[in-house]
Amino acid sequence: MLQKTGRARSGNKTKARVRVVEDGRARVKSDHLATEEPMEIRLVTGGGRQTVAVTMRTPGADFELAAGFLYGEGIISSREEVKKISYCVDSDVDAEQRYNIVNVELRGDREYDLRSLERHFYTTSACGVCGKASLEQLELRGCPVVPPGPEVSSETIYSLPEKLREAQGLFEATGGLHAAALFDAEGNLLATREDVGRHNATDKLVGWALLEDRLPLSENVVMVSGRSSFEILQKCLTAGVPVVCAVSAPSSLAVDVAREFGMTLVGFLRGGRFNVYAGFDRILLGEGKEPAT
Amino acid sequence: MLQKTGRARSGNKTKARVRVVEDGRARVKSDHLATEEPMEIRLVTGGGRQTVAVTMRTPGADFELAAGFLYGEGIISSREEVKKISYCVDSDVDAEQRYNIVNVELRGDREYDLRSLERHFYTTSACGVCGKASLEQLELRGCPVVPPGPEVSSETIYSLPEKLREAQGLFEATGGLHAAALFDAEGNLLATREDVGRHNATDKLVGWALLEDRLPLSENVVMVSGRSSFEILQKCLTAGVPVVCAVSAPSSLAVDVAREFGMTLVGFLRGGRFNVYAGFDRILLGEGKEPAT
Repeated sequence: MLQKTGRARSGNKTKARVRVVEDGRARVKSDHLATEEPMEIRLVTGGGRQTVAVTMRTPGADFELAAGFLYGEGIISSREEVKKISYCVDSDVDAEQRYNIVNVELRGDREYDLRSLERHFYTTSACGVCGKASLEQLELRGCPVVPPGPEVSSETIYSLPEKLREAQGLFEATGGLHAAALFDAEGNLLATREDVGRHNATDKLVGWALLEDRLPLSENVVMVSGRSSFEILQKCLTAGVPVVCAVSAPSSLAVDVAREFGMTLVGFLRGGRFNVYAGFDRILLGEGKEPAT
Repeated sequence: MLQKTGRARSGNKTKARVRVVEDGRARVKSDHLATEEPMEIRLVTGGGRQTVAVTMRTPGADFELAAGFLYGEGIISSREEVKKISYCVDSDVDAEQRYNIVNVELRGDREYDLRSLERHFYTTSACGVCGKASLEQLELRGCPVVPPGPEVSSETIYSLPEKLREAQGLFEATGGLHAAALFDAEGNLLATREDVGRHNATDKLVGWALLEDRLPLSENVVMVSGRSSFEILQKCLTAGVPVVCAVSAPSSLAVDVAREFGMTLVGFLRGGRFNVYAGFDRILLGEGKEPAT
């Protein structure tokens, strides 16, 4: 394993000595880094065990990450299919790695077709979970258009970044984490998840909703830090989320997905203003009393 | 294909109508988005053709992206192995997709072992190219430690963000692109590449260096927008880059890679200050005359 000299690991934060260089002078200080560690997701079925993914993630909400990943990939479609999620406790796995391997045990003898995962080596700009090794498979034809509603007032949307920041303890400590948060249409925060990767934060959030039996999230708003990409929109679409907000810019393909599937996409949500790239009909202007025109 | 109604595509920028909501009122404006499109990389050898990756990327520098990706994955190790890189012009590929498929033709009859790519479905926080489906494979044991040198003055490092910003035309237009830039040890900008994904921007930069026969980049500094992760450090290490700077925070594993392999890692480089997480011996303080202590 890589050396971790001089570092004390404590879950999602890692202490490090750092030199701050300012005005041509250096001073030593103690700092916190966002922990990044690989996590292996293993699928356990009647037919045996199989590694389906190794993802670089920030430890925490690991079971939700595993569940959300499998859901987003279409390997599972409901909580009922999951019998048990646990860390690997095999004796041949050393202690340091034990909390980096998650076993997801599925019910029944159903054969899970993982060939589509195995056959294709692929990457995407945010991570590996959205691309398929042919362009056609990116078209998402199987996904239903998100039904109309709910309506969300502009005042509610303005308020989301501050609520996200308040909930984001670790982000403030390290400056190194992305966050995804789930709100109801009135702007009440329901859950927040953090990770070095935005896609992982979103998987954790969706995995939480899956395990809490809250899917589809058809009355909810998801807000992500940073930018929105195809992948983030795809994950939200799969979970039935009608309104997606991001602190920063969307990509062209994120806008395409939102427009094609009837989602509302908000970007540059900061400083009391935002841009609407798709699904403006869900936005109530002013105090939320006037309908959008 | 997904509809692209009302949008004119023009390479790396995509026009879109957007509603700006401010003070409870909405106005329509025309905006630019960073284009995100899938790109398929196909390897063409004596044995036939094979898709090795589909990556979500911003069009532009596509051949460099393909070369950099293959280099970072260890599939090719020198420019000499590449016979030809071209867009796919098969008659069965429709016009819209043609510039999203890149064929990389390799010299000779060497058998390329792609099984390691195919066998494992994996994801990472920044993309798919750094994880392997077992934790051990993340240890990078095969990579040599970066040799000492060059020394870079703190004044030079302070100056990098402004130089990167000046070179980043599209980023300013869309707010949606990451950038990776190559400098010499005196802070002269040699190349910049942009993409919706930081890992793609880095692949494009390394691919450029490979095709220009400039590898290893052992006298250079790479600067990336945003954060630094395991993956970014791994790509820079493979290309022999001794000094990596980022605008924002590193992850714990990025610091681990830098410390383990003798790289200098700078973070939070903004506003005339920066943090050094590893390899402080390459930093010259003040005017670059005093040695670091």
